[in-house]
Amino acid sequence: MALIVQKYGGSSVADADKIRNVARRIAVTKDKGNQVVVAVSAMGDTTDELISLAYQINEHPDGRELDALVSTGELVSSTLLAMALEAMGYDAISLSGGQAGIRTDSTYRRALILKVESKRVVKELEKGNIVIVAGFQGISEGEDITTLGRGGSDTTAVALAGSLEAEVCQIYTDVEGVYTADPRLVPEAQRLDEIGYDEMLELAVQGAKVMHPRAVELGELYNIPILVASSFTDNPGTLIHGGVSMEVRNKVRGIAHDLDVAKVTVVGVPDRPGIAAAIFEPLAAASISVDTIVQNASIDNITDLTFTVARGQLDEVMKVIQPISQEIGARECVSDATLGKVSIVGTGMQNMPGFAARMFSTLSEKGINIQLISTSEIRITCIIDEVRVKDAVRALHRAFELDVAD
Amino acid sequence: MALIVQKYGGSSVADADKIRNVARRIAVTKDKGNQVVVAVSAMGDTTDELISLAYQINEHPDGRELDALVSTGELVSSTLLAMALEAMGYDAISLSGGQAGIRTDSTYRRALILKVESKRVVKELEKGNIVIVAGFQGISEGEDITTLGRGGSDTTAVALAGSLEAEVCQIYTDVEGVYTADPRLVPEAQRLDEIGYDEMLELAVQGAKVMHPRAVELGELYNIPILVASSFTDNPGTLIHGGVSMEVRNKVRGIAHDLDVAKVTVVGVPDRPGIAAAIFEPLAAASISVDTIVQNASIDNITDLTFTVARGQLDEVMKVIQPISQEIGARECVSDATLGKVSIVGTGMQNMPGFAARMFSTLSEKGINIQLISTSEIRITCIIDEVRVKDAVRALHRAFELDVAD
Repeated sequence: MALIVQKYGGSSVADADKIRNVARRIAVTKDKGNQVVVAVSAMGDTTDELISLAYQINEHPDGRELDALVSTGELVSSTLLAMALEAMGYDAISLSGGQAGIRTDSTYRRALILKVESKRVVKELEKGNIVIVAGFQGISEGEDITTLGRGGSDTTAVALAGSLEAEVCQIYTDVEGVYTADPRLVPEAQRLDEIGYDEMLELAVQGAKVMHPRAVELGELYNIPILVASSFTDNPGTLIHGGVSMEVRNKVRGIAHDLDVAKVTVVGVPDRPGIAAAIFEPLAAASISVDTIVQNASIDNITDLTFTVARGQLDEVMKVIQPISQEIGARECVSDATLGKVSIVGTGMQNMPGFAARMFSTLSEKGINIQLISTSEIRITCIIDEVRVKDAVRALHRAFELDVAD
Repeated sequence: MALIVQKYGGSSVADADKIRNVARRIAVTKDKGNQVVVAVSAMGDTTDELISLAYQINEHPDGRELDALVSTGELVSSTLLAMALEAMGYDAISLSGGQAGIRTDSTYRRALILKVESKRVVKELEKGNIVIVAGFQGISEGEDITTLGRGGSDTTAVALAGSLEAEVCQIYTDVEGVYTADPRLVPEAQRLDEIGYDEMLELAVQGAKVMHPRAVELGELYNIPILVASSFTDNPGTLIHGGVSMEVRNKVRGIAHDLDVAKVTVVGVPDRPGIAAAIFEPLAAASISVDTIVQNASIDNITDLTFTVARGQLDEVMKVIQPISQEIGARECVSDATLGKVSIVGTGMQNMPGFAARMFSTLSEKGINIQLISTSEIRITCIIDEVRVKDAVRALHRAFELDVAD
């Protein structure tokens, strides 16, 4: 008997029929003699609808109230899912995030899990119950409801799997697994049978929407294998784990892309110590997440400093950065919100200079201009014009022979 | 500075505009220098919609799951109301029933409040917050969500008022207060400025929908004055309290009526000890609430036993009662679901035989046949044909001179 944690996303439980469908899938896992814990998202667009209602009433809703409000979406889906299982003759119980022991800090809207007190979950499993946990939510030390922010329900599932020492955490979603590139852009994209945590993390950070990076990180931390698969088919999906075989290393595993990119350049910055801090500390204080940062070589002690942010934060960034730019004596501050980024990801890349060369020459052959480059040990990212992203992904997919199944 | 508890019903918070309207009313009370605690119902038809969703998924939903599900309705309205107050510049915080310390037993769907641990509410009041409590819900000793059943949000409000020793509990609803009769039936019906707990209790039990009897009982227990008024107007409403002046005693205060009446008669029952218990114990075990019970004088040791129940329970009653009826050797068991009841209520009635006589003669003059009569110290109730209820209420309203303002 194994303990299996499953997660079902909002589109998988969007209506009564879909909830019954999910219940049947859970029942199959239970019938095989497993103990099953399920984390579930809110039905369909519930969360967006609740948030829209909040903004109708208050343009700047309080984080605590907003979290208490949106957390109701997962309470609804978790209770309905438990009822669907009971209607099929299974013993099931729904638990709120708080009841399931998801203890978080008090950072509303994007709380961090401090620990999982799984006593209640264990007790219900021992009673023979299938345990349905409301995803995306936790409870703070002050006993207030918090939500975990983006990727919250995935994070709930992996955290539960870690604390319960589950055999596997199965993330059921509306895609068939992790692909070598977005299949909507690249029809020849191949589903990967397996991928390492680090590679998945880079793909996720660089725009692959299939899983949120924080859930992948948590999986790596607890060494919990994560299966990503469709809740609508019985296809095998992709297993994210630490023991990916050597054969699939030292090659590009996937192409990620992201259109949510805006570039800000502070032009003509006097190059002296403390300049970068003067710019990025206020941005951090304003909770703005800065992605790639590039500083050009200085000429006559004058340099340009460029960084990228999510497009939705550009207005706020410019509000923060304009006065600072004047203070530090920069010439001007310009932005461009028509960019995209494309990344190749694969373990062992740092030892193989050929990857970067092949990436740059592939883009060059297509006449695609590279505006910024950033690299990690297992990734190379190029910022390019947004209208060329699709071409770039396709060309790179072909250049790195990803259209051939492993 | 007084502490005031208010309650707003579902129709008062049915949409964003109505929620803002309620927030403005709360703000007026706060601006007068009061501490304010508010219990709020779910928006409009939310509760019914959630229940309908549950029954789509499971024809016999588990009570625990159903309570966890429907309790989300009040979480939504309470957080939105807190946000509306914050948008107006007021400090406000929403609390779930559990956070507000409403501790109940584990009787899902109709839990009883065991105690109110008001520590958190007091703390938030001391911080200067207006405290918005999700009505209708509590938390069991096992930390599971419960709901309080009919009249639940009124009960939440009065229980909070009792535990906080509030100056008054104001129940805001879609009617202007307590009337001498239902104004939809009797256009001349007069709003009462005040009424005693006992009289209100009898009116409520006998069909006046304005307040649920259990909230009135709780108000009497803690001696908390309860104001019933409209959330849409600034009219004064009706104050329910214990100190109603002597002048308004010893007269009929109001006419209640109820169309949700079904009559069951067990015909030809051998009149021996234990027969009533044999009939009513199984009904109680099936959670059927029996109203009026009448047993005719026995002839040749054979009697008829008649009682009334809510129409929705009639099928279940017949299922329980038919086999028992055979067991105890009764001749047959008949029912009638086309009845209504009409009651006159007023303190001091028991000392004034003239009331009963006037009631019976008024109905007789209208050619209305009385099928059953029951009385309490402050009430006389007649069961009559449902189609004559309207005529009866109007005639009695006139006969007892209730169309004249106090």
